Amino acid sequence: MIRIGIDAMGGDFAPKNVVMGAIQAFARIQSKTRLVLFGDKAQIAALCGEAGFDSAKFDIVHTSQVIEMNDHPAKAFQQKTDSSITVGFSALAKLRIDGFASAGSTGAMLVGAMYTVKAIPGIIRPAIASEIPLLNGGTATILDVGLNVDCKPDVLYQYGLLGAIYARHMRGLENPRVALLNIGEEEEKGNLQTKEAHKLMKDNMDYHFVGNVEANQIFSGDIADVIVTDGFVGNVVLKQAEAIYHMSNVQKIDSEYFNRFNYELYGGTPVLGVNAPVIIGHGASSPKAIENMILQTEHAVQVRLIEKITESLDKE
Amino acid sequence: MIRIGIDAMGGDFAPKNVVMGAIQAFARIQSKTRLVLFGDKAQIAALCGEAGFDSAKFDIVHTSQVIEMNDHPAKAFQQKTDSSITVGFSALAKLRIDGFASAGSTGAMLVGAMYTVKAIPGIIRPAIASEIPLLNGGTATILDVGLNVDCKPDVLYQYGLLGAIYARHMRGLENPRVALLNIGEEEEKGNLQTKEAHKLMKDNMDYHFVGNVEANQIFSGDIADVIVTDGFVGNVVLKQAEAIYHMSNVQKIDSEYFNRFNYELYGGTPVLGVNAPVIIGHGASSPKAIENMILQTEHAVQVRLIEKITESLDKE
Repeated sequence: MIRIGIDAMGGDFAPKNVVMGAIQAFARIQSKTRLVLFGDKAQIAALCGEAGFDSAKFDIVHTSQVIEMNDHPAKAFQQKTDSSITVGFSALAKLRIDGFASAGSTGAMLVGAMYTVKAIPGIIRPAIASEIPLLNGGTATILDVGLNVDCKPDVLYQYGLLGAIYARHMRGLENPRVALLNIGEEEEKGNLQTKEAHKLMKDNMDYHFVGNVEANQIFSGDIADVIVTDGFVGNVVLKQAEAIYHMSNVQKIDSEYFNRFNYELYGGTPVLGVNAPVIIGHGASSPKAIENMILQTEHAVQVRLIEKITESLDKE
Repeated sequence: MIRIGIDAMGGDFAPKNVVMGAIQAFARIQSKTRLVLFGDKAQIAALCGEAGFDSAKFDIVHTSQVIEMNDHPAKAFQQKTDSSITVGFSALAKLRIDGFASAGSTGAMLVGAMYTVKAIPGIIRPAIASEIPLLNGGTATILDVGLNVDCKPDVLYQYGLLGAIYARHMRGLENPRVALLNIGEEEEKGNLQTKEAHKLMKDNMDYHFVGNVEANQIFSGDIADVIVTDGFVGNVVLKQAEAIYHMSNVQKIDSEYFNRFNYELYGGTPVLGVNAPVIIGHGASSPKAIENMILQTEHAVQVRLIEKITESLDKE
């Protein structure tokens, strides 16, 4: 039995979009998987009723509080003890659920992950990862995209490992190509941080490092499956990618490719390096995005992502 | 009399595209401006002849060597003493020309600028600036885009000043809005570098600082005319912008806006903070780009850009 926890109150259109997404996900999850919704039981039941869905197919854990987007993440996580996020992480830490997903406050989700399930022993700093749509139809995984904005070279080195394990087990790539985002192809190019990180990554035995990749090369898929960078640069790249969708939209260009830059349609952003599957969805998540986020969380549990990361650290 | 020096041998399609661009520029420069071409005199004359243009309308300084793209910039600048770039910078340092432009080796151009005309007293680190096309039809100036990849906060502060002066005098904006590229709007957001830079920029009297700008907001023009960042992040943003043109092109999207991301069509990248107008063009510059680069160099001389920067530093 797999139990996937979902913050029913998280996101700009919660609980409606979350409940709709959970109903959609229900049709696609494994028969042994249970969806556990944390939130206002009456609202969740009512939304299920409106959709003609039997709410008994979910486990519902009633919570009376919501961490809002403008709440201070750490304070709210500690003070709103009956919020859907706080109760959800408590259940995750007590192994009552196997993974937890929310489209609510990113800050509170990160605080919750660090305070309760904590980093896997050996992980210097956890990271959040995102997918970049590629011209060849696939995606590339980029990390960190905002959790750790001042990265030492050894942290970047380890992000290569986290990204490789994620790509191998979640995306099914046997030997993912890991590249360092840099401003030149040659190994002596870059700032102090990337030059030092390149030295650590080069000739390493933990993952398949293919060298530097420049920002104009990351969308082809020709060079890398996993792109390693610090949380500041990664966040800039991701927001510029979001801008691409906006630009295309403003110009009324109907491009299948540019539409894939709409992060509201995506699943979620995994928090990698913490001791349980934790996925954060976009605040403006559609029901489809919530559905994908739930399936992504289930997938992380099924492939035993956390164990794979833990094992890889033991090997080092 | 204004004399604009042009490296006739610089760029992937030199000397042809350079000479064609110079001929086109000739029709648009002020009557008091002379174009001084550095390069192989016979080749330049022949190209003028083919175009039915009287080469005597140019000043031609014959040089016998070329710094190639794969030459080591510093070594080549010093050893190829009769190269178009080395001779050009020598003329610039001796005030025989008032500005120098090249689509050749960026590295050699930067070395030449730093070795010969040098930084303006008071400038901590020069920067290279680029223009980002905006959805509103205008552009925003972003700096640094690759010269100084490890920036201290005081350097970012000064980039705000350089960018503001550039936007005021070269782009005619009376009170340009200067923003710091960051990963959140709030002043406490960012990495150690941007948090400290924000403190220096906030409430400053040298230029109009409007706060942080995120990478998804830089293309609207709603927030900033000048975007300040370090050379690493700026280079990543610029290369991702180049990727946008490529993506649009691969998809055969004919968008006037996305076509403006084709940096081969642009003028050049000014080296700001050195003691003379120095402009570097894209290696694949078209004749139109060369023409724009020449007019941009003439414009910098006409508006006395260097004096304006020098005066602003005296005021500090």
